[in-house]
Amino acid sequence: MDFEFSDNLKNVKSSEIRDLLKYIHLSDMISFGGGLPNPETFPSQEIKNILDDIIDNYASSALQYGQTDGLAYLKNELKNYLLKDENININPDNMMITTGSQQALYALTKIFANPNDYVITEAPTYVGMISSLNANSVRAVSVNMDNHGMITDDLENKLKMLKSMGIKPKFIYTIPTFQNPAGYTMDLDRRKHLLEIAYDYNIPVIEDNPYGDLRYSGNKLPTLKSLDANDIVTYLGTFSKVMAPGLRTGFTLSQPEVIHRFNMLKQSLDLASDSLSQYIAYEYLKRGIIYEQVPKTIELYKRKRDIMLESLDDNMENAEWSRPDGGMFLWVKLNKNIDSSKMLKRAIENKVAYVTGSAFYYNNPEKNTMRLNFTYSKDDDIKEGIKRLAKTINEEMKNY
Amino acid sequence: MDFEFSDNLKNVKSSEIRDLLKYIHLSDMISFGGGLPNPETFPSQEIKNILDDIIDNYASSALQYGQTDGLAYLKNELKNYLLKDENININPDNMMITTGSQQALYALTKIFANPNDYVITEAPTYVGMISSLNANSVRAVSVNMDNHGMITDDLENKLKMLKSMGIKPKFIYTIPTFQNPAGYTMDLDRRKHLLEIAYDYNIPVIEDNPYGDLRYSGNKLPTLKSLDANDIVTYLGTFSKVMAPGLRTGFTLSQPEVIHRFNMLKQSLDLASDSLSQYIAYEYLKRGIIYEQVPKTIELYKRKRDIMLESLDDNMENAEWSRPDGGMFLWVKLNKNIDSSKMLKRAIENKVAYVTGSAFYYNNPEKNTMRLNFTYSKDDDIKEGIKRLAKTINEEMKNY
Repeated sequence: MDFEFSDNLKNVKSSEIRDLLKYIHLSDMISFGGGLPNPETFPSQEIKNILDDIIDNYASSALQYGQTDGLAYLKNELKNYLLKDENININPDNMMITTGSQQALYALTKIFANPNDYVITEAPTYVGMISSLNANSVRAVSVNMDNHGMITDDLENKLKMLKSMGIKPKFIYTIPTFQNPAGYTMDLDRRKHLLEIAYDYNIPVIEDNPYGDLRYSGNKLPTLKSLDANDIVTYLGTFSKVMAPGLRTGFTLSQPEVIHRFNMLKQSLDLASDSLSQYIAYEYLKRGIIYEQVPKTIELYKRKRDIMLESLDDNMENAEWSRPDGGMFLWVKLNKNIDSSKMLKRAIENKVAYVTGSAFYYNNPEKNTMRLNFTYSKDDDIKEGIKRLAKTINEEMKNY
Repeated sequence: MDFEFSDNLKNVKSSEIRDLLKYIHLSDMISFGGGLPNPETFPSQEIKNILDDIIDNYASSALQYGQTDGLAYLKNELKNYLLKDENININPDNMMITTGSQQALYALTKIFANPNDYVITEAPTYVGMISSLNANSVRAVSVNMDNHGMITDDLENKLKMLKSMGIKPKFIYTIPTFQNPAGYTMDLDRRKHLLEIAYDYNIPVIEDNPYGDLRYSGNKLPTLKSLDANDIVTYLGTFSKVMAPGLRTGFTLSQPEVIHRFNMLKQSLDLASDSLSQYIAYEYLKRGIIYEQVPKTIELYKRKRDIMLESLDDNMENAEWSRPDGGMFLWVKLNKNIDSSKMLKRAIENKVAYVTGSAFYYNNPEKNTMRLNFTYSKDDDIKEGIKRLAKTINEEMKNY
């Protein structure tokens, strides 16, 4: 039969990044697309030991349905970890365990915003947030960024203008630290300014912090959540970048009334997150393996970041790029005549892949941009891939 | 701050069943609430062996992000399993791996129905479907059931009436085999009749089959999917009842255009399902452990079903109940004056719990009903629990 479908997905496009995963396996292809942590950082042996103990000691719980809001043991360990690691003092009642942070982006959008409502995002912003907005028919106003993160003066101007139009955005979404895709980090003054503005306009803030633990240079900055005196910040964390992404375990910290709504919605989204993966995360924190693993990950990723930056410095013309203090990505701006989307075919012919920057804009994309991941590729492949990319850009420039 | 929330969750209530999970741990409480498989059926040792091999052989994939539509290896094993087990011949391109079947209920509702659209469900129906409808602001028209499953003549009458009102339901949702909550199984004539009606009215069918492998008596019946000549049936399966529910691994079979939409939506729902759990399911099928485990589960559950039926026969007055040939639940109808919801407090005082039947109706609940789970409790607890329940009902009857 020919099916008739709802209008709900009319704005939803398949993520170019997810689609790119198919290229990553082609032989000889060097892909800076995707957002994959490096499997070398996976604590496989430790997870094997943990798994053996979990099955021996708690198989009947670890293989059973769990509570929708998550494993209480894990929440208690997270409470301790967040206090130690981020100076966030949180009660387990203010916590949801989620099926990755992606689930939180979808759920929070639905909890806060009706169809056709507006929210604030950075430009560029995380592609998974854009897909959640589109899936919920929610619109975004984008705030510009520079090397110091979201330009909070631009935020204030846009909120003022929206207010004059009678529009109150439902939340402000930001990745303040080692932003995906741009690699920028919001400085302390702007963090404080952002909170002041949010308090003034009474708009909830969603702080997405998947990369905060992965700092390779510069000084640690306080999270918005830890600076938040008015309980306006909802904080998203994940084990994807500090343990293993395949285990799909994230967490959301917020006011109990947000957590309550999330809990109700999650009953219809997936009932509960994977129990076994939650037990792994619990043991991973409890045994303190995270404190050994993160420094190893930082060592590896710092080296790869440095290799990529050095390769860019040595090879790349007609472009500028961010110099991230952490995270997994850097952002390249090409000559303004180049459309990186159109250039991708040539890049793939040259056996190198990236994500076109336009994927990271809710609207009005800067088409001359691209995101490069520096954590996944082998060291030599980073050097070779940047050469191929430089060659691709030079070839493309001949058209102009 | 005081948050303002969207209207999206205005119809969503916390599931009474999920809330009941907290009573299940109270000492001396015998709970027939919840829908928990018995942990005795979890193939713990086999999973431990599988996990050791997975970490040794594929840690870098099993701990990494996977494809949104699921692990290709698992899909190939499922193809073989479905052909052998259910005579369903499916191409892996017509398959999505889901975070439990619950995710499919949410996604398919959103894919097929706009807010305020109607769908068809059975009355009673699975509570997770009701929560998915409510979360998507979709409405249901309920079709009555009897011991032979959905009354397809009632379906036809209701579709005729809806058509006269200019309403075309977006899909027909059914659990034809060992239905949750009622334990009824749709007989073969009605299966064929249901498909004829769906073809006539050109309405997609969603067949939810979590319990099909768990048959304790009677002859196996063909699934709607295997009878479907017109490719109108979307089929939901899960490993929750034949492996372990905590691993949150289900699958959806449908036309490629449905799978494509599901894939796009899943990118915003959770990016991908848990990789490790998908690898476990893959090895579980590939090694044939499922063919050893299911008969053991059947043996255990058949005994528990028989104990519950015998205990009901011996103790229960003023009630009738279903005699399921499989699955996990049976359905009790009390004297029509009794509201099982109001009686629950007395039951809990008597240290026995159930789920009130009204939780399973989209609207117009039959308040004198309840669902009993017979798979989770110890044999002696089933006997004692039914005595406590009979006592509770007798006490309640004195009010009338």
